[in-house]
Amino acid sequence: MRQTRVVRKIHVIGIGAGDPDQLTLQAVKALRSTDVFFLLDKGEVKSDLTQLRRDILDAHLPEGSYRVVEARDPERDRKAGGAAYSPAVGDWRSARAGIYERLIGEELDEDGTGAFLVWGDPALYDSTLAILEEVRERGAVEFVYDVVPGISSVSALVARHRTGLNRVARPVQITTGRRLAEGFPEGVDDVVVMLDAHQAFRRYADEDMDIYWGAYIGTPDEILVSGPIAEAGPRIERLRAEARERKGWIMDTYLLRRHSAQDGQAGG
Amino acid sequence: MRQTRVVRKIHVIGIGAGDPDQLTLQAVKALRSTDVFFLLDKGEVKSDLTQLRRDILDAHLPEGSYRVVEARDPERDRKAGGAAYSPAVGDWRSARAGIYERLIGEELDEDGTGAFLVWGDPALYDSTLAILEEVRERGAVEFVYDVVPGISSVSALVARHRTGLNRVARPVQITTGRRLAEGFPEGVDDVVVMLDAHQAFRRYADEDMDIYWGAYIGTPDEILVSGPIAEAGPRIERLRAEARERKGWIMDTYLLRRHSAQDGQAGG
Ligand SMILES: C[S@@+](CC[C@H](N)C(=O)[O-])C[C@H]1O[C@@H](n2cnc3c(N)ncnc32)[C@H](O)[C@@H]1O
Ligand SMILES: C[S@@+](CC[C@H](N)C(=O)[O-])C[C@H]1O[C@@H](n2cnc3c(N)ncnc32)[C@H](O)[C@@H]1O
Repeated sequence: MRQTRVVRKIHVIGIGAGDPDQLTLQAVKALRSTDVFFLLDKGEVKSDLTQLRRDILDAHLPEGSYRVVEARDPERDRKAGGAAYSPAVGDWRSARAGIYERLIGEELDEDGTGAFLVWGDPALYDSTLAILEEVRERGAVEFVYDVVPGISSVSALVARHRTGLNRVARPVQITTGRRLAEGFPEGVDDVVVMLDAHQAFRRYADEDMDIYWGAYIGTPDEILVSGPIAEAGPRIERLRAEARERKGWIMDTYLLRRHSAQDGQAGG
Repeated sequence: MRQTRVVRKIHVIGIGAGDPDQLTLQAVKALRSTDVFFLLDKGEVKSDLTQLRRDILDAHLPEGSYRVVEARDPERDRKAGGAAYSPAVGDWRSARAGIYERLIGEELDEDGTGAFLVWGDPALYDSTLAILEEVRERGAVEFVYDVVPGISSVSALVARHRTGLNRVARPVQITTGRRLAEGFPEGVDDVVVMLDAHQAFRRYADEDMDIYWGAYIGTPDEILVSGPIAEAGPRIERLRAEARERKGWIMDTYLLRRHSAQDGQAGG
């Protein structure tokens, strides 16, 4: 007869997009069942975010009940733009898979439980799940994993603006600044934009559109602006530049809502 | 000198899509600062969902510390299909605005705090925010309100399937079964479908697509199926019909992921 297999466990835990109270009860339980937390540091500009993860652990776990292992995230080749974007992401992901493999294999007992704390919701523009799949495919270290959904910056944005993502019976698209710079998406009038380093919304300043913008949402630095894009746009540009200057980095997200013949109210 | 104004407060609280542990800490705090909960019942098929709301209150609040006011939600005219969809929703919403106005005005003290518990995330296909705006515009009762974001069925779906919503640097669209029945959305290969009473995915059975489907996600009745749509589709149809028969109602959501030349892995 075979023995019961013991195998390493990993939780991928969505921690919300800035407000520590956005943690779910499920996330708190997952934190409490974790032995080792893997914190990946993306360099000094994001060290505020690493600190927030540590604060969350402090707030919910008795001291000495867990271990934190920090690792440096390899730099992504940001010079590779346009068509080269995906391959650069691919190399970067392999480098990360190597690091994750080592963390899981070396820092976790064979019956231990580790966790990655993911900003917002692990489902949106985050590579943790893909990297873990890659580690599993390599086959060098065995583990099982589960995913705890989190409040995304998208949900946080519209909650703060007290509006919906979609209008009645209509679709909403979530996309990147890079995509929006290529043109307004087809077939939708409600578009959420993430990862926009170049304020792609400026291109639409002359259109009949509202913008709901937020930076550092859920944190003490939160800034919110909404209104017709012609008026709100320049204000956002100014506030964004000032904030970026002051803090050294920025994270912002926005919803563009285009007006059209079939307009109704949000909701439905 | 003017006195400090007292004014009624309303919390719109996202409670997650089925698992009571999906409540956020922020939601628990909002529950605890509420005097009166307004529960709107949509008739017997959804009474399980009203019960879940009551269970959440029981679990987090001391008995006797709050009041629950139940009201019957007016029926939506479901016969009005196609182009008539929006006006029917409009009438229904006005009827609801009248009910909400009465609830807030009559059941809440002038310095009291009320709350609406919204399934999933209030930002997705839910009319509570639009109705509250309508009540404010009518001007008969004065109040302020805030929104607590919740884990949507969309986030819960992909977490259970351990996949992302978007693929690297690519967009994702969230839409309805009605829309999907009209054609696959332009410009996206990842589409989440909600409110689909007619299994619109069947139309795409011959395409190179994966489906990630879930019903009653987060509840003890949860069913999950994923795989190439040609194989998983018929299985989903069968399981869906059986479950619907057994429970009398169903709520399901799915992600369609179309394969194309530019394919990469989920994440990013
Ligand atoms: C790599 S993605 C990760 C998204 C994350 N998984 C989520 O669910 O929000 C980073 C982008 O998320 C958005 N973002 C994350 N946190 C934010 C916050 N607190 N305020 C505004 N935008 C935020 C920004 O658009 C940023 O460029
Ligand atoms: C009126 S919408 C409300 C959506 C909700 N606000 C949310 O964030 O999930 C109802 C639709 O949500 C989806 N849904 C809600 N809860 C679900 C669950 N537990 N499992 C599967 N689908 C669910 C179904 O597509 C259903 O038709």
